Amino acid sequence: MRAAVLTIGTEVLIGDIVNTNATYIASKLTELGYYTEEILTIADDRQAINGALVRLFNDYDVVICSGGLGPTSDDITVSVLASFFHSKMIFSEKVYEQIEKLFQQRNWKVTETNRRQAMVPDNAMILRNELGTAPGLLFRRGGKVLVALPGVPFEMKRLMDDHVVPYLESGFGLNPLCRKYYMFTGIGESDLSDRLSDFETELKHDKTEIAYLPSPGIIKLRLTLSQRNREEAGKMIQRYTESLYALAPEYLYSAEGETLQQVVSRMLKKSQKTLAVAESCTGGYIAHLLTSIPGASEWFRGGVTAYSNEVKISILKVKKEDIDTHGAVSSEVAVQMAEGVKKQLRSDFAIGITGIAGPDGGRPEKPVGTVWVAVAGPDGVTSQHFLFGNSRERNITRASFAALNHLRKSIGE
Amino acid sequence: MRAAVLTIGTEVLIGDIVNTNATYIASKLTELGYYTEEILTIADDRQAINGALVRLFNDYDVVICSGGLGPTSDDITVSVLASFFHSKMIFSEKVYEQIEKLFQQRNWKVTETNRRQAMVPDNAMILRNELGTAPGLLFRRGGKVLVALPGVPFEMKRLMDDHVVPYLESGFGLNPLCRKYYMFTGIGESDLSDRLSDFETELKHDKTEIAYLPSPGIIKLRLTLSQRNREEAGKMIQRYTESLYALAPEYLYSAEGETLQQVVSRMLKKSQKTLAVAESCTGGYIAHLLTSIPGASEWFRGGVTAYSNEVKISILKVKKEDIDTHGAVSSEVAVQMAEGVKKQLRSDFAIGITGIAGPDGGRPEKPVGTVWVAVAGPDGVTSQHFLFGNSRERNITRASFAALNHLRKSIGE
Repeated sequence: MRAAVLTIGTEVLIGDIVNTNATYIASKLTELGYYTEEILTIADDRQAINGALVRLFNDYDVVICSGGLGPTSDDITVSVLASFFHSKMIFSEKVYEQIEKLFQQRNWKVTETNRRQAMVPDNAMILRNELGTAPGLLFRRGGKVLVALPGVPFEMKRLMDDHVVPYLESGFGLNPLCRKYYMFTGIGESDLSDRLSDFETELKHDKTEIAYLPSPGIIKLRLTLSQRNREEAGKMIQRYTESLYALAPEYLYSAEGETLQQVVSRMLKKSQKTLAVAESCTGGYIAHLLTSIPGASEWFRGGVTAYSNEVKISILKVKKEDIDTHGAVSSEVAVQMAEGVKKQLRSDFAIGITGIAGPDGGRPEKPVGTVWVAVAGPDGVTSQHFLFGNSRERNITRASFAALNHLRKSIGE
Repeated sequence: MRAAVLTIGTEVLIGDIVNTNATYIASKLTELGYYTEEILTIADDRQAINGALVRLFNDYDVVICSGGLGPTSDDITVSVLASFFHSKMIFSEKVYEQIEKLFQQRNWKVTETNRRQAMVPDNAMILRNELGTAPGLLFRRGGKVLVALPGVPFEMKRLMDDHVVPYLESGFGLNPLCRKYYMFTGIGESDLSDRLSDFETELKHDKTEIAYLPSPGIIKLRLTLSQRNREEAGKMIQRYTESLYALAPEYLYSAEGETLQQVVSRMLKKSQKTLAVAESCTGGYIAHLLTSIPGASEWFRGGVTAYSNEVKISILKVKKEDIDTHGAVSSEVAVQMAEGVKKQLRSDFAIGITGIAGPDGGRPEKPVGTVWVAVAGPDGVTSQHFLFGNSRERNITRASFAALNHLRKSIGE
C-alpha cells in the first residue's frame, strides 16, 4: 500500500520548526509495511491545503496529515477537510466533555476558543485526544483513508499509537518489510563503504538493498530484504551480521539499531556496574544522553560538569601542577578527572573528558576540536586523543559518542 | 519570489531521519525574503526524482534540493539532474584536488568511490564543498535556479552559507519580510490566545498575521507585518511589544526570539555574575543547554548531576535527615542542592532541581512529573513546585526551562 504524509504549517515552511511529526508518522507507516512515497509540507492556506488533499488522496491509499487543528486563529484545516468530504459540522458532547476534563485537571477555565474545538465533521470517525483539545479525524472514501491529527507532537504521537496504528493494522493488514539496522561509530561513510564493497556485491545478488545513514559520529546501515519468507530472511540476516562483524569489528557497536547510550546502559545493567562522568568540553551532554534512558538511576550515579579549572581541582581533585604543566586539555587531566569522579561518586566505571569545543580557545598546538577522553574502571585507566572539526555543536556530539564508545570497549574487555 | 525545497532520501521517507536540512534551507530562504510554498521529500528513485524536478522547476522560481550526492551506491541524483538539464559529465580537476586535500587532512586514502565524485555536469556552476567530497551544483534555465546540495547537514549548511545565500542575495535581491518573534514560557497556547484576543483584533486591523508556535515549555509568537515601510513597521512593532509586555508580563521572556538560555547567558554576562547547577531529574540537560552557548565558560562554573542520594549528600552536602524526612523530591532538598553547589563551586547564582521524570518512581502523593526548583543568589534562595506530565523526555525539557525561567526572574530582581 502506498502512503503519503502531509504536514500543514507555515512554521515548518519558513524554517521555524523541524518537522519531527512527519518522521514519526513515516516510521510508523514503515513498521506497518506501508511505502511512504511522499512527505509534503504546505502552508496554513485554504487553497494550498485543498490542492494537496485532492492530489494526494487521488495518488495514494493512505494520507496522514498533521497540523492545523489547534484552537488559535491561524488554523483552518478542519473547515477545508469538511468541504472536501462534504461534511456538516456538528457539536460533539463527547469531545466537549474531554476538553472539560482536561482543563479541570490543569485547573484551567474552558474558553470560547476551546468550545469551538468540539465542533466536528459529521462523517468523520472521531479519535479521542487524551492529551489535548483537538480530536483526530479519520475519513474514508472509495477504499482510501485520510487521517487528520493535531500538530502538537506528543498529542499526534499518542493518537497515532492509540488509534491510527491499530486501525491501519486491522483494516489494511500487510506483511512488514524485513529491515535490519547496524550501527557504526568512529569511521567515515566512504571508508566504511570501501570496506564493505564485496559485501555490497553479495547483497546485490540477494536483492537486498543497502543504505548508509550518517549523523555526527555515527553511521546507521540499513538493509532491506526483498526475501519475504521469514525463515529464509532470518538465515540471511544471520549471515550478514557475521560478515559485518568480520569486516569492521572495531566500529560495529550494535546489530540491533541501538544508540550507543542504550548499548552502554545494557552492558552496565548486565554486569551490575555503576558509572559516573566528569565532563568539561561536553558540558553535561554525556550525562544528558545517559539520563534520557528510563531507569538510568539503577546504574548512573551522577556527574560533575567541571567547566572551570577551579572545579576540576576542588571537586575532582585534579592536581593544579598538572593543569599548569600539561594544560587543562591533556591526557593527564582527563585521567585525573575520570579517577577523581570515580572516587568521589564511588562508581565502578568513570569517564573523564576535556577538550576545546570552540569556536574560541584553540591554539596552533591544540586547535579547536582537540579532545582527550579517559575511562577508569576496575582494571585501571586508559586515555585516547581525538581531533574533531570546527563546529561547537558537532564537537560536543562527536566527543560524547567517542567517550561512550571508549567506555563500551572498556566494559567489554 | 516563490521557492520550493526538495529533499531526496529514502531515510527520511521511512522515518529514520528527521529532515533538519529542509528546515535550515527554508529558514535561509525566509530570511532572504523568498516564500517557500512547498517542502517535498521523495525517495532515492530515478522516476520519483525526475517527476518532482519537472513539477517543481515548472511551478517555482527557485528550487533547492539536498541529498543523494553522496559517494555510496544508493545515490543517483546527479545522473537524473544531468539528464534533466541535458548535461555532459566531465572530470573536474578542481573538485578532485579538493577531495585529495580533504583526505590528506584526515590521513585517509582516496578511493575509487571518491574519484567518481569528481565527475560533474558541464553546464552546472560548481559550489566548492570545504567539508566533504560532493560539491554543490547550481543550474540556471529560463530565469530560474535549481541548486543541488549534499545531504550531510553540516556540509549542506556550509554550502548554503558560503555560496547559495550570497548568490540568491545578489541575483534576486528582495526586501525581507518584516517578522517579529516573541517568546513565552509557563503558559499554555489557548490560555495565551485568550489573553491576547483584543491584541489579535488590533493585529487584524493592521493586516499583521499572528501565529502561535508551541514546543514543550515554550510558546513562540510570530508576527508577520504586511506594512513594507520600514519606519512605519518599526513604530508598529514598538506598539506591539508594549502591548504584549502589558498583557503577559510574567510569561514574556524575550521580544527578540531568543532561547531562555541565551537570555540567561546575556543577563549573567551583563551583571558579571557566575552560575552553577545541581541537577537530579534533568540529569545534565540544563548544563548542556547552557554550555551549548559559545563562550559559556565566562559565566558558567559547572554543575553536579546528583542522580543518587549519596552524591547529593557527599558532594552537595544535602542533609541526610532532610532526605529521610521530606524525600529526595522536596523543597528542602532542592534548596540545599542549590546552596550546596553554589558554595562548592563558588558561584554567584545556583540552580537546584529535583523531581520524578518517569516513567517509574511516581507515588500518589508525588506523581511522575513532580518537580521542585530552587534558585540561590546573592539575596537568598527561593523554591517553586511544578507538576508536569507523564513523558520522561518532555518532563526533562519542561523542568529545565522552568528552572531557567526561575533563574531569569531571580537575576532580574
